[in-house]
Amino acid sequence: MSERAVVVIGAGDATGGAVARRFAREDYIACPVRRSEEALAPLIADIEAAGGRAHPFGCDARVESEVVALFETIEREVAPIEVCVFNIGANARFPFLELEEKKFRKIWEMAAYAGYLTCRQAALRMAARGQGTILVTGASASVKGYANGAAFASAKFALRGMTQAMARELGPLGVHVAHVVIDGAIDTAFIRDMFPERYALKADDGILNPDSIAETYWMLHNQPRDAWTLEMDIRPWREEF
Amino acid sequence: MSERAVVVIGAGDATGGAVARRFAREDYIACPVRRSEEALAPLIADIEAAGGRAHPFGCDARVESEVVALFETIEREVAPIEVCVFNIGANARFPFLELEEKKFRKIWEMAAYAGYLTCRQAALRMAARGQGTILVTGASASVKGYANGAAFASAKFALRGMTQAMARELGPLGVHVAHVVIDGAIDTAFIRDMFPERYALKADDGILNPDSIAETYWMLHNQPRDAWTLEMDIRPWREEF
Amino acid sequence: MSERAVVVIGAGDATGGAVARRFAREDYIACPVRRSEEALAPLIADIEAAGGRAHPFGCDARVESEVVALFETIEREVAPIEVCVFNIGANARFPFLELEEKKFRKIWEMAAYAGYLTCRQAALRMAARGQGTILVTGASASVKGYANGAAFASAKFALRGMTQAMARELGPLGVHVAHVVIDGAIDTAFIRDMFPERYALKADDGILNPDSIAETYWMLHNQPRDAWTLEMDIRPWREEF
Amino acid sequence: MSERAVVVIGAGDATGGAVARRFAREDYIACPVRRSEEALAPLIADIEAAGGRAHPFGCDARVESEVVALFETIEREVAPIEVCVFNIGANARFPFLELEEKKFRKIWEMAAYAGYLTCRQAALRMAARGQGTILVTGASASVKGYANGAAFASAKFALRGMTQAMARELGPLGVHVAHVVIDGAIDTAFIRDMFPERYALKADDGILNPDSIAETYWMLHNQPRDAWTLEMDIRPWREEF
Repeated sequence: MSERAVVVIGAGDATGGAVARRFAREDYIACPVRRSEEALAPLIADIEAAGGRAHPFGCDARVESEVVALFETIEREVAPIEVCVFNIGANARFPFLELEEKKFRKIWEMAAYAGYLTCRQAALRMAARGQGTILVTGASASVKGYANGAAFASAKFALRGMTQAMARELGPLGVHVAHVVIDGAIDTAFIRDMFPERYALKADDGILNPDSIAETYWMLHNQPRDAWTLEMDIRPWREEF
Repeated sequence: MSERAVVVIGAGDATGGAVARRFAREDYIACPVRRSEEALAPLIADIEAAGGRAHPFGCDARVESEVVALFETIEREVAPIEVCVFNIGANARFPFLELEEKKFRKIWEMAAYAGYLTCRQAALRMAARGQGTILVTGASASVKGYANGAAFASAKFALRGMTQAMARELGPLGVHVAHVVIDGAIDTAFIRDMFPERYALKADDGILNPDSIAETYWMLHNQPRDAWTLEMDIRPWREEF
Repeated sequence: MSERAVVVIGAGDATGGAVARRFAREDYIACPVRRSEEALAPLIADIEAAGGRAHPFGCDARVESEVVALFETIEREVAPIEVCVFNIGANARFPFLELEEKKFRKIWEMAAYAGYLTCRQAALRMAARGQGTILVTGASASVKGYANGAAFASAKFALRGMTQAMARELGPLGVHVAHVVIDGAIDTAFIRDMFPERYALKADDGILNPDSIAETYWMLHNQPRDAWTLEMDIRPWREEF
Repeated sequence: MSERAVVVIGAGDATGGAVARRFAREDYIACPVRRSEEALAPLIADIEAAGGRAHPFGCDARVESEVVALFETIEREVAPIEVCVFNIGANARFPFLELEEKKFRKIWEMAAYAGYLTCRQAALRMAARGQGTILVTGASASVKGYANGAAFASAKFALRGMTQAMARELGPLGVHVAHVVIDGAIDTAFIRDMFPERYALKADDGILNPDSIAETYWMLHNQPRDAWTLEMDIRPWREEF
């Protein structure tokens, strides 16, 4: 089998790292991406210790020239990109009346615009080859605009609308596009430190394990093309919704 | 590992049969159900030839007493039911102005009411044991009421509404409930005979393979409880939607 | 202007009565319908005291022969039916595990099946004349299956799916079909007696006034055919959702 | 009654102009806004000829300082803003693979970001007064990402997500927020010139009359606060959807 790469945009948090590890386990060359390349060192070490291959990439995914260069570099120096995962989160909450312009714009740039920039570079190469998978991380705010979530919901809705259009165009070109609504707290340092009572639910699987999310992404990539999923949700068994 | 059964309500068509085979392959005792037990003979032979175990059951799933007896018999004589799949279809189309009462009622009885009767018998046992999976087959008519689809959409919407309520109640009891919107033609004798031009799409995976649907169901059953799916869709890569 | 009737199926509660009064005010002959004709006496007196015209009809809307006779009688003895409002509620909540067959079936028969029976009789006449309006009362359970709401959500989803199909078929025939999700407590004796703390919100418009609902229905009926609404929601300003 | 203003952001096309005229007819001081103040002259003349009052405003609604100045000027020199209508469209279609960064960003800035900037200025004032109405123009792309619509759907989804969050926060503060999905061709010069076969449907109301849209907005503003609509759709009777 020839070499192939998985690019994970937003590999700084638990989910992106778990996805990179999951695909590396299947002999994909993992290309985790975050703003600071240095911050990826532990993940790279992790993957390599498990016998996998990985290359870290520093890139501000909100800057088109950096994104273009990123995809060119990976395709030239690593391997053809078979899977692209867009996983940048930006879940900050502000009352609408206090929502500053810089915040509204930045949340969109991170959660939606960067998704457009990266998915399009992936799509161009995948469509030319007639195969590939683009996986997009959603949230409950992708489908409902909660109070104090105007910026985040706006950005996540934007990402979902774009993803639906992509799926309709790229599917017939052989590229699988899917959107996963992750509804619930994820096992991260952020939840552990900020919401300890929530984190305590971990004891009986009440928060999402990043490895479970990664398994979902791996499953989506492996769906045969006669039965592709566009949208699915995942949440802990005890989650109220 | 102790014995466990999978019940497939509506195992007459391609999907139900494929699901029964898929779980039998993993050492579940398959209990396919349709109105006529005799009609299940080929499926049973198939499963046994592959080294699996299966028991056919004849049952009109629209009759409560028959459904109650069915679940009692399986639990008593076969094994605890770990998985229940509701898969009765009733995709008949009629202009609303010509939609007779018998048709409207029958389509609901098959596609929604039988779902209530069977899922509830499954839920009672699963909730008592704190584990189990209930999988429900949806269609594009589960989420959109198309012209000439008043009866079918009404029944499929009904099934989906019930499934959402079940998921919210049974999840915290340890029972996973999921609904799969299958959007597109399935590789069945019906499509082959009635829509040959559609069936021709099979050559390049343009219609759904029942085995792919079964794989989706198997995946859902195996999701860890920190990351359960309630709703997902599947469709062929070339499907317009 | 020639005579025309408005039929209100389920005129027993506050909403149906308010709708009958609203249309009677515009010179429609109100035909409120509920199981017991006698129970309609106060409403009829109310409408007549305000200078309107009304005929009470007793009918079990779950029985096709009664529904057929109802529509024949009104068309023959009162006036052509220009507006049909389906407003039978059935908002009872049961845990799924305790949801008895009789309850599940009855809630569907009241909230969905009776809708099919009555809307079809209306549609047959309206389509033949190329004009008319069918208005359907929804609830938050029409779009989300809440815990303990399996029966009600299933029935309300069923009604909505049917309504969408009706709209797509009947619109091009000149018949306007619309579905209103009423989300929140309505000012009824039931809420007053059973949920007094909720009823207290009435003081500052925190529960729905039936007259406001009726105004919405009147507005929908008056939309010009270049701008018809299929779906809308209404809820009090303070409602959490 | 004291003076009050209606601001219409995006009053260049048929819809915005019709909304300005509709509210001016009820003695609101219309403040139509578009990039070029001069281009508003015919609309102002129209309103004044009908006995209404109007002030034209030139403003690039994508520039925060201009938007802030606009709202300050209107409140200081015209009247308190009781109604704010966001109506900037940006319905351009591009295949995703050819969708340039400038296009993606500009469509978002026009259809979503400008909505945030203007609605927030309106909301600050309305919330302080405990009353007001914010009306947002949606499209079918607000709820479905069509092929070749990645940029437009992304922007319209973004606007809808923001609007839902606004409604949940501002409702309890006395401010009514509503979103109208306008599904179908509108009677504009653009449709007349570019899609003549579509425009021909006008003869029997097959395209939307801007005055009908304006009537819908007027109705929404007049809803009593016990029965506010958040979302509704409008489309011609013959529209397929």
